[in-house]
Amino acid sequence: MKGAGVKGQDTQHALRRRNLSRVLRTVAAAGTVSRAGIAERTGLTRAGVAPLVDELLRLGLLVEAGRAATGGRGRPGSGLAVSDRGPAGIGAEIGVDHLAVCAVDLRGRVRARVAADAANRHSAPGPVLRRLSALLMQVTAEIAAEGLRPAGLTVAVPGLVARGSATVVHAPNLGWRDADLTPGLTGATGTSGAPVPLSVDNEAHLGALAELRLGGGADGLAPPTDFVHVSAESGIGAAVVVDGQLLRGARGFAGELGHVPVYPDGRPCGCGGRGCLEQYAGEQAVLRAAGLTPEQAAAAHPGPGARIALLARRAADGDAATTGALHEAGTALGIALAGAVNMLDPRTVVLGGALARLAPWILPSLEGELALRTAVAPAAARPGGPLVAVSRLGADGPLLGAAHGALRAVLDDPVTADARAHPPHR
Amino acid sequence: MKGAGVKGQDTQHALRRRNLSRVLRTVAAAGTVSRAGIAERTGLTRAGVAPLVDELLRLGLLVEAGRAATGGRGRPGSGLAVSDRGPAGIGAEIGVDHLAVCAVDLRGRVRARVAADAANRHSAPGPVLRRLSALLMQVTAEIAAEGLRPAGLTVAVPGLVARGSATVVHAPNLGWRDADLTPGLTGATGTSGAPVPLSVDNEAHLGALAELRLGGGADGLAPPTDFVHVSAESGIGAAVVVDGQLLRGARGFAGELGHVPVYPDGRPCGCGGRGCLEQYAGEQAVLRAAGLTPEQAAAAHPGPGARIALLARRAADGDAATTGALHEAGTALGIALAGAVNMLDPRTVVLGGALARLAPWILPSLEGELALRTAVAPAAARPGGPLVAVSRLGADGPLLGAAHGALRAVLDDPVTADARAHPPHR
Repeated sequence: MKGAGVKGQDTQHALRRRNLSRVLRTVAAAGTVSRAGIAERTGLTRAGVAPLVDELLRLGLLVEAGRAATGGRGRPGSGLAVSDRGPAGIGAEIGVDHLAVCAVDLRGRVRARVAADAANRHSAPGPVLRRLSALLMQVTAEIAAEGLRPAGLTVAVPGLVARGSATVVHAPNLGWRDADLTPGLTGATGTSGAPVPLSVDNEAHLGALAELRLGGGADGLAPPTDFVHVSAESGIGAAVVVDGQLLRGARGFAGELGHVPVYPDGRPCGCGGRGCLEQYAGEQAVLRAAGLTPEQAAAAHPGPGARIALLARRAADGDAATTGALHEAGTALGIALAGAVNMLDPRTVVLGGALARLAPWILPSLEGELALRTAVAPAAARPGGPLVAVSRLGADGPLLGAAHGALRAVLDDPVTADARAHPPHR
Repeated sequence: MKGAGVKGQDTQHALRRRNLSRVLRTVAAAGTVSRAGIAERTGLTRAGVAPLVDELLRLGLLVEAGRAATGGRGRPGSGLAVSDRGPAGIGAEIGVDHLAVCAVDLRGRVRARVAADAANRHSAPGPVLRRLSALLMQVTAEIAAEGLRPAGLTVAVPGLVARGSATVVHAPNLGWRDADLTPGLTGATGTSGAPVPLSVDNEAHLGALAELRLGGGADGLAPPTDFVHVSAESGIGAAVVVDGQLLRGARGFAGELGHVPVYPDGRPCGCGGRGCLEQYAGEQAVLRAAGLTPEQAAAAHPGPGARIALLARRAADGDAATTGALHEAGTALGIALAGAVNMLDPRTVVLGGALARLAPWILPSLEGELALRTAVAPAAARPGGPLVAVSRLGADGPLLGAAHGALRAVLDDPVTADARAHPPHR
């Protein structure tokens, strides 16, 4: 111990913060758990767990759950749960024709959610962010009434975001280039005036993170940890997850599946290339192949997700032009994904976003191409389950991924985050 | 400390082994370094470094370098270096028409190397491994005369290897399926009868690991840490390195660039697919497009790398059929790599193996396709340097990667590895 001095104290301080985080994460994962259960799951001693739990109770991040369960009397301390008050993660989504905001509490429950139609295509960032700020203030007010405060804000955008920044480098469907969202969103969630950490991320990346944290099969399968996640709104995005980690790319631009060439001498693309996947499986391409204009689609079925809903209805009704268009989209997706599967050898390909809704008509041709073009390894070598899975989160993925991501700061460092997010606890 | 008992001793033992590894790696990286220098670079105290150095000297893994530098007198201990005796990493390569073996010492120098022509295409594993064993015994005998012993053997194969195994699941150009190489190679490097750890890996993976450890620009650039490495022998392989880690894939089959579809309705491929890259940029495709049969090529220019050498000579001589064939190969490579770059956003694409030798004629069309098809992000957002680099290791990459990989066990745990590799030190 000799000479440890300040450095030793720093280390103890850091250790305590790490242990607070471990305990909070353990309770969040368990639902309701006793102090003894926490000790068992963390490997800490029971004597070590007690003061950590006390601090988390004092911060209002944990609550006694046993007391409530036994009708107001019970034995205090018999059960602990994370609080449904205090910090909330705020997720926001900027789509080409909609805006959405939601708040998730430490228990993972969505506590507030608003969405609005919006004509964002080729609208400057300013007006879009002003509308989004109004929705953010609406959600912040709603959750404040329930004792929740924003701990962080993550915004999903349909474009490339420079790694570790809040700058949208390029969002072709919005028409944005090098747009820093910080000034336009500062203060939108800070009812108390305190700044809230802002993060901006590609919607496909956030959809994949949602799948990693919340996904899994309807039959109780664990969320996947090695997968390629494909999603679509107006464009087509993807994300690669390896050993539970999102692969962001050197600049943060990984996952541009929409611009993988599928027919190299094919249709010209807005990116300057030719035969990009987006020209065959993007929303506009599918609508055109189905014999619809975007205006017809919007008029026939207004609201967010209008055009996808219309395609799904027409396909369900057996409209040959629509099912043919979706078959072709599946073929193009299968060719592009065959390249990705050959390069990355993921355990699963997950279809999310609008693709989840259209999966019944897209999957057959998609799986056919994948089977044909990834056969270099004997099929027997591919262990377990279907290679292609459909996300249960669907179009909600990016928004939920954003809200859960915004809560991570609290789970990583409860003390610091609490200073920002939580009002004095009575 | 109360109750730490055996567990505490285990931990101290593990800590000492980790520190031995840190010191050995530090000296290996530094070349020649003093005890004080080791302390500075590792963060250990000088009092802590001294006994670790003593043990590594005793094991014969380190030597006093100062004594030699000052003409036999000097101050013992003024400089330390890793030994050029003791453990050696053995790398072996099984190619379609050649076999090679090399030995690398702790200083990273190649101490022995043999290669032989071999007609391995569609030869059963047995005879191939018997010939390889003869070469391994030759190299083992050569290095034994210089006081070196095999510490491990890594074999590079042109095929898929199941993750963490010595089983070649599928090597189409050899005609091997589910071939476990362990029985055929046991004893080939064990002159003392002691078994040596065996590892089998895909040649493209090993080429990328060589690039990671030994690569970098001729102008002193550091080796890349985020790149896609492409190499070719008879087939075309690739490897993805992210943050300095090789991405192996869920089964170990990542990097199958040769079967990425480039012209989806194109030529049928042996894998069962259509329009795979290998049908346009693989060696046989290029020879055919250049108007040569493999037999003509081999007859005109015998020896390992014969066909590639012939193509390079013809191209250098300005033969239009050959330069045209290489131009088309570059186009196909560019289309396939555009997909990989869009998905992975690497900092660099490195051309290795035979492609490095043919780069002058392949690069123009390859870079043209990449520029056309990865332009979704503004060019200005791509920081630093050319996107495509040519490996200086060339065709040596996989063999060197294998030999260096085989040495890792020594660097990771000097004590255990020494018990296997090093004779008693005088």
